[in-house]
Amino acid sequence: MGETLKRLISAMILVPLFIFSFHYSGWYYFQLFLLGVSVIYLGIVEFCSFSDKGDEGKPFVKIALFYGIMIFFVSYLQFIQVQTHNPIPEGLKSFLKYIPPDANLITPLIFILFVHSFVIQLITRPLEGAILSVSTTVIASIYLGLTNAHFFKLLQQTNGIYYIWIVSGTVFITDGGAYFGGRFFGRHPAGLKISPKKTWEGYITGMITALIYTIGVTFSFEKITGVMPPFSYAELFLFTPIFSVISVIGDLSESAMKRDAKIKDSASVVPGHGGVLDLADALLIVMPCSYYYLCIKEVLGFTI
Amino acid sequence: MGETLKRLISAMILVPLFIFSFHYSGWYYFQLFLLGVSVIYLGIVEFCSFSDKGDEGKPFVKIALFYGIMIFFVSYLQFIQVQTHNPIPEGLKSFLKYIPPDANLITPLIFILFVHSFVIQLITRPLEGAILSVSTTVIASIYLGLTNAHFFKLLQQTNGIYYIWIVSGTVFITDGGAYFGGRFFGRHPAGLKISPKKTWEGYITGMITALIYTIGVTFSFEKITGVMPPFSYAELFLFTPIFSVISVIGDLSESAMKRDAKIKDSASVVPGHGGVLDLADALLIVMPCSYYYLCIKEVLGFTI
Repeated sequence: MGETLKRLISAMILVPLFIFSFHYSGWYYFQLFLLGVSVIYLGIVEFCSFSDKGDEGKPFVKIALFYGIMIFFVSYLQFIQVQTHNPIPEGLKSFLKYIPPDANLITPLIFILFVHSFVIQLITRPLEGAILSVSTTVIASIYLGLTNAHFFKLLQQTNGIYYIWIVSGTVFITDGGAYFGGRFFGRHPAGLKISPKKTWEGYITGMITALIYTIGVTFSFEKITGVMPPFSYAELFLFTPIFSVISVIGDLSESAMKRDAKIKDSASVVPGHGGVLDLADALLIVMPCSYYYLCIKEVLGFTI
Repeated sequence: MGETLKRLISAMILVPLFIFSFHYSGWYYFQLFLLGVSVIYLGIVEFCSFSDKGDEGKPFVKIALFYGIMIFFVSYLQFIQVQTHNPIPEGLKSFLKYIPPDANLITPLIFILFVHSFVIQLITRPLEGAILSVSTTVIASIYLGLTNAHFFKLLQQTNGIYYIWIVSGTVFITDGGAYFGGRFFGRHPAGLKISPKKTWEGYITGMITALIYTIGVTFSFEKITGVMPPFSYAELFLFTPIFSVISVIGDLSESAMKRDAKIKDSASVVPGHGGVLDLADALLIVMPCSYYYLCIKEVLGFTI
């Protein structure tokens, strides 16, 4: 079976699963939480395998997993208090009062993770490699846990579902468009050391298909809901290209890590795509950035 | 001049400077801000020299400096809005409204720092060493910027000055007590790979002198202000030993980094002490931890 076919079949299974995960608001979005935990778990394991330099230092996988998932879990608990689809059960309220939705709990978690890694380094590891070991442990949790936590931040907005469609669509359509655009029209290499096969035609096709997609989603949103879309068409011409480029940055960053580790695919969990990181790399970077984009818009006085 | 004498003279200059920095509330605590920026600047430069593995990766010093200082600067701007000694000038208010005191701006800064480092890695560096370079850049900013930012968090409490005296005193008295205790009574090595010369007698002397100190500060606080001290004497017997141990963890963590880099003193900025990191290592870890200790106390319903 060809790579392209495998890729399409994987997408046909994953895309409906992904859409269900954030559309179905029953179960307190628990399916979304589980999907996120799976991505974080597999992603951290993959990242840690990249970062393993043997005697010169390697991340503490269990610590990275624990804090990566904790950051996501705390964000989930904050999210379910803000979402309006499911009332919080009385029994849970007395526990959730310790995790107020607006409290900044991520910074303390990152800091405690840093100290915890050092303690384990001092107790269990030889003198060499402390800096690499501790640094990569912290970065593993940030790269997977902190990024994925922003999914909840996007979803909790008034037009959360619209934003998820726009943001994740921009990422996956840019990637898919670039892949097929590169295969069919690719002539001029973009000249990137990190990904020498990528062509300008691929990237441009990716950006254009992403723009067609975001215009399509916005048009459908207006038709279906009858509400004015959160992004005007003019704003889409600003937002989509910028986030298409950020998406490519996310993709290249992951390639840089793989090159550093001298491997091609981050794993072989997803047929035709490679590992979870190969699939999620761009979304991990785009999600927080698009949330900050909305925050800046709000601070400047626009409605989001 | 002997090391001990140098150490004492350095302390005689630095301690009054340090006390002035957080006691003098005029100038919007700008002297405290400057002191913090100096520590962050020198600390990041020292940390980056530890982490430099040449062709195998090295941190982006300028990026780490920029974000490390930005994290501290944003925290300072949030702090001056909360402190009550100086009214905010009208002209500054329209700018400060974009930096509300309760907004979590540190997480976005850490994330943008992560992405920024990757972009510069992709553009300027060879394929090797991406993970080490990016990870250590982020950790440099966290290790210096994020930690120092907690000084403001402690100081903005109702009994902020008391807490600073207790927390920083615990750190420096533990260290000084351990140094002199080890010199005079040291017999039994604590058996730490990382610091083979440290003795149990040293650590115990450090902890006891720290406890005597915190009791003294609490007693003086009660006498001078006539107010009931924020920490009861019973709580000091819990707080001081715990933070004395955390202080040692901070000290050993920095030693682990130096050992990793195969150097003895982090620099020679402070006569008798070495570099800024040799001096500040323990405080960097203890400051955030003691702030979280107060937060947990508050969440549990105690007055802080």
